[in-house]
Amino acid sequence: MVGPERNRLDRLQQTLRRRKIDGLLVSQPHNRRYLSGYTAPDHGIQETAGFLLVPASGRPTLLTDSRFTLQAEAEAPLFDIITTTRGLLKSLEKQCRTLDLKTLAFESDYFLHAAYLRLEKMAKSRGLVLKAESGMVEKMRAIKDERELELLRRSTALNEKVFQSVYQTIEPGMSEREIALALELTMREMGAEGPSFDTIVAFGTNAARPHAVPTDRVLQPGELVLMDMGLIHNGYCSDMTRTFVAGKPDQTFIDRHRAVRGAMLAGINAIRPGITGAEVDRAARQVLTEAGYGTAFGHGLGHGVGIAVHEDPRLSPRGTKQLQAGMVVTVEPGLYLADWGGIRLENMVIVTEEGAEVINRDTTCLDL
Amino acid sequence: MVGPERNRLDRLQQTLRRRKIDGLLVSQPHNRRYLSGYTAPDHGIQETAGFLLVPASGRPTLLTDSRFTLQAEAEAPLFDIITTTRGLLKSLEKQCRTLDLKTLAFESDYFLHAAYLRLEKMAKSRGLVLKAESGMVEKMRAIKDERELELLRRSTALNEKVFQSVYQTIEPGMSEREIALALELTMREMGAEGPSFDTIVAFGTNAARPHAVPTDRVLQPGELVLMDMGLIHNGYCSDMTRTFVAGKPDQTFIDRHRAVRGAMLAGINAIRPGITGAEVDRAARQVLTEAGYGTAFGHGLGHGVGIAVHEDPRLSPRGTKQLQAGMVVTVEPGLYLADWGGIRLENMVIVTEEGAEVINRDTTCLDL
Repeated sequence: MVGPERNRLDRLQQTLRRRKIDGLLVSQPHNRRYLSGYTAPDHGIQETAGFLLVPASGRPTLLTDSRFTLQAEAEAPLFDIITTTRGLLKSLEKQCRTLDLKTLAFESDYFLHAAYLRLEKMAKSRGLVLKAESGMVEKMRAIKDERELELLRRSTALNEKVFQSVYQTIEPGMSEREIALALELTMREMGAEGPSFDTIVAFGTNAARPHAVPTDRVLQPGELVLMDMGLIHNGYCSDMTRTFVAGKPDQTFIDRHRAVRGAMLAGINAIRPGITGAEVDRAARQVLTEAGYGTAFGHGLGHGVGIAVHEDPRLSPRGTKQLQAGMVVTVEPGLYLADWGGIRLENMVIVTEEGAEVINRDTTCLDL
Repeated sequence: MVGPERNRLDRLQQTLRRRKIDGLLVSQPHNRRYLSGYTAPDHGIQETAGFLLVPASGRPTLLTDSRFTLQAEAEAPLFDIITTTRGLLKSLEKQCRTLDLKTLAFESDYFLHAAYLRLEKMAKSRGLVLKAESGMVEKMRAIKDERELELLRRSTALNEKVFQSVYQTIEPGMSEREIALALELTMREMGAEGPSFDTIVAFGTNAARPHAVPTDRVLQPGELVLMDMGLIHNGYCSDMTRTFVAGKPDQTFIDRHRAVRGAMLAGINAIRPGITGAEVDRAARQVLTEAGYGTAFGHGLGHGVGIAVHEDPRLSPRGTKQLQAGMVVTVEPGLYLADWGGIRLENMVIVTEEGAEVINRDTTCLDL
């Protein structure tokens, strides 16, 4: 079986040749996985599971230590695996010499300053020119191929199955933590690798914090419940938000829920190739502003999703880049009122040649 | 109640004055928590929950964004909380001006190169001298006070309780993932904040990978089981490894298990103030080498544990620093044979004035 990595490497190497860079050192774990198939995560940036060295031509190398050699060999057949014994930098230096590199780019957005100082010293001693790069692989990752779209659909379908299963059990007397734990458990039981971010479950006024952390607060009859959840399945993330009421919603909730739903639909309708993230954000924001909630929507409209749960592109007032077919973004408008609570709704959307395809199928409480 | 943070800040400020540094920018999340009490974690280094700015004299500042303001105010009473609206760097610049800093140190080991480029630009425009620092707070953290030792004992006791509870349920037919999930669930149910690292459960040949990731492999009668697990409890980590057999161990397993146990004991016996990490590593490694498994032990002997599960000091062939009383380290020798499997045993040890105090009490399968 030929994986998608061959094609990705070819394209990256073309970019390197065009930009006259002899090699790219890949340290960002999602980029590493995307290009190689090697799935080991970093345990924080200070404990890397390895680097890729992708030369402008020829076979790339995966540098790691003995803890990961077998996994790397099994998962990254397109790479020569080098097991370092005296540190990654020593092995990198040797490999740069073997490949006779004159210029080496590194990922400035995921490279520690201390590691840079060591790399710089090595480079100086060898006459190697360093280039701080930003977003080279991230830009590729933003456009998904058919296989990736299918994996994102499956991740979303599983996420919805988990949501619906737990949703049916929710009743007054349960705590935010209890529901969050039930969601994360059900994710695992249903086959997910784990949550794609810290699950948010917030009741009533707690939902006025966009990034609420679940507490021991107990659900009261008639209170609103905001749930923002996602999981990782076959390496791909999902992300969905629903807000509903434990019992019968009052007219205020219904009106505000409709305003947020209207904003979500306006955002989705605006999505098409060529539009900027800021323009999509504005289309959704406009609906909330007209409903009188412009200042109650304090965050950007959405973000790309793929191997990482937050990636390019960004849909926000500062999103100057144009959307392209194959991108996958969340659309998640919200309104937050400190004395009352918050409502956020979030679906994932594929940018298509024609416009937008909504990945989500769940319609829980979208009928108010 | 006076927390330990006052004393820690005092000592750090003394160091800054002695080294003629006007302020330290603290970005490393464990250092941030250690000095301030503020517990918010980073969601990866690219999504920080804030920075501390500790001046050589006077009141320190915690810079964060609106998501974390309330939490910071509640948890870090010794700090002025500044909520940034236009980015942390802008707020930092303003605060450096307010405090009239001439030199600013930053944590080179936990500061992205891309962020450094922005910081450098700001510093140049203000005539501020930057100093790349390494390990200033980590060095303090390596020596635990009595309260911290007690928290580490409690974390270990809870970890052992979880281990023993799940150990009793293990039988052929269960998968690695199933057991790992049961461990992590039991941790949460028994009151832990969560695992301190990705739980390792590996059967048979899978255990030949020191950092095995749990799979769907099903346990067969007579197979060996390696479990490496830890949890976070009141902010402090535990870390323990046991290897046993599902059924009756054969003589090969017993012999190899004894060799690893002998290495662990030799390591623990060597521990005392003044010895280097390399010397402790050598004492343990020698036992495995003499038993014919020198090349089968490919990693270092251990590492410090505290707020972080991996911290200073390191016990490895490259550990040149001397141990000091109050340090807490793991001792975890292992042997790994690709065609057979692996055995690792790990306890946590306090370096005392007299030598070593083993924190662990669990003796599961240490009687072979």
